[in-house]
Amino acid sequence: MKRFIAVIGAGNADEKLLSMAEETGRLIARNGAVMLCGGLSGVMEAAARGAKSEGGTTLGILPGFDKNSANPYIDVPVATGIGDMRNAVIVRTADVLIAVGGAYGTLSEIALALKMGKTVIGIGTWDIEGIIRSDSAEDAVAKALASFKL
Amino acid sequence: MKRFIAVIGAGNADEKLLSMAEETGRLIARNGAVMLCGGLSGVMEAAARGAKSEGGTTLGILPGFDKNSANPYIDVPVATGIGDMRNAVIVRTADVLIAVGGAYGTLSEIALALKMGKTVIGIGTWDIEGIIRSDSAEDAVAKALASFKL
Amino acid sequence: MKRFIAVIGAGNADEKLLSMAEETGRLIARNGAVMLCGGLSGVMEAAARGAKSEGGTTLGILPGFDKNSANPYIDVPVATGIGDMRNAVIVRTADVLIAVGGAYGTLSEIALALKMGKTVIGIGTWDIEGIIRSDSAEDAVAKALASFKL
Amino acid sequence: MKRFIAVIGAGNADEKLLSMAEETGRLIARNGAVMLCGGLSGVMEAAARGAKSEGGTTLGILPGFDKNSANPYIDVPVATGIGDMRNAVIVRTADVLIAVGGAYGTLSEIALALKMGKTVIGIGTWDIEGIIRSDSAEDAVAKALASFKL
Repeated sequence: MKRFIAVIGAGNADEKLLSMAEETGRLIARNGAVMLCGGLSGVMEAAARGAKSEGGTTLGILPGFDKNSANPYIDVPVATGIGDMRNAVIVRTADVLIAVGGAYGTLSEIALALKMGKTVIGIGTWDIEGIIRSDSAEDAVAKALASFKL
Repeated sequence: MKRFIAVIGAGNADEKLLSMAEETGRLIARNGAVMLCGGLSGVMEAAARGAKSEGGTTLGILPGFDKNSANPYIDVPVATGIGDMRNAVIVRTADVLIAVGGAYGTLSEIALALKMGKTVIGIGTWDIEGIIRSDSAEDAVAKALASFKL
Repeated sequence: MKRFIAVIGAGNADEKLLSMAEETGRLIARNGAVMLCGGLSGVMEAAARGAKSEGGTTLGILPGFDKNSANPYIDVPVATGIGDMRNAVIVRTADVLIAVGGAYGTLSEIALALKMGKTVIGIGTWDIEGIIRSDSAEDAVAKALASFKL
Repeated sequence: MKRFIAVIGAGNADEKLLSMAEETGRLIARNGAVMLCGGLSGVMEAAARGAKSEGGTTLGILPGFDKNSANPYIDVPVATGIGDMRNAVIVRTADVLIAVGGAYGTLSEIALALKMGKTVIGIGTWDIEGIIRSDSAEDAVAKALASFKL
């Protein structure tokens, strides 16, 4: 069974975070894991673009009813139609999560993931107890892969 | 139309927080608003008990499939069967939210509420930008009622 | 614990069905049960109006994000924001369901209710195996009440 | 953008229906569409096995919290944790649906799909107005593909 690594983060992010999200997606794909995200723009799109550039598989769990609202780097869009509640579907489906930056939506995902006992690795994100801090895509993905061996 | 004030907080809480939650529920009822919560134990039960002691109406949005899992002070239990996602239903239904203490589940509710632009008042809870801090039930309910006039 | 009887049916219905839905709501309230529905117009509004005319309690599980979309006879509106999926919340919360007429949305509720093993009583509704047929509000509510004693 | 064709049907089905579901999955993959289903056993597993035998992509929208509950032919499992409500996610994500046999769960999906105005093709399934009847996998998939040109 393939591993699913979620990249969570805001629809709006600065260049530095977007670049880190793209590199994170690239490394997820290079390591044979599925890249899972919220399917929209910003960090989600950057991570998906990175994963596709390495031939990886990308899954986008969308808030709306329209599959076509997914960014162009999503292979498998899922139209949930449940709005922000789709964050919980991302958390439930992910084996581990990497937060890159992020606003309130990302915070809600982090909180749900930590509640479920899932590993959350954070780059430049909320300062919440339980998050494993990281400062680069390489380090974050290494920590994500290491979590599978626990 | 009646106002709906949510009291959010953990299923486990210390005596001081439980006492504040109960007083919060009492004041919500005394001011004619519906007390809405997650329907289970701890802060949720204390707030419901307080509201019922003043003859108020209590609504419990439950995570599971069984209405009978609600605490005994819930007038109207709703069995969502969607687990922690029910936090989003609480947020969507509330006019304003008062967080009393709280663990990761409460944090996810706070984050969703702030994302939706709803007023969140916090007593002894997470330190998140956007929360209006309070240190007593009286002050918290006063701030909740004031938010309706904005 | 109060019993919850759902009245399900379409947002558009003819006068005869609306009149039966209203009488059904009236009898539910007169028998001390909570009347639960989808909170919108048509059969839902007629049943709620009937229940309120007898001083009953009405719960409306709404598809959208806005509590104010509930019809004026709903005491406790719940804004789920999950669209037609809210039909499943109605089914999970109901102790028994009475279908009055109904289009595809009602059919989905009937199917989910029968799948969960809940009693479904039908007046002028879909012809699906498992529904207990009825031809009047009096008979339907009597059968609903009888189902609690099984 | 790839087309998504859902195959819906029961977890328990007789050999004839399972064989038709498998052939349906095979033809969906051969025509370059993604095969989407509920991810569990019976018709869902047969359709996924068929699609994989042709090298297709399979998406399973699961009711539970555990991705590993998917049948072994699912490439991309999604753990929704919302029970039967996941039927609505299948409907929202599908471009067209093919029902093969099916019990109450399938009936709820058919009803939701018809409510949303989606094309539903049925082989040996419920007799509901609006379903396009078919009696073979070849015919059903041909009708599904034809619906994209409308």
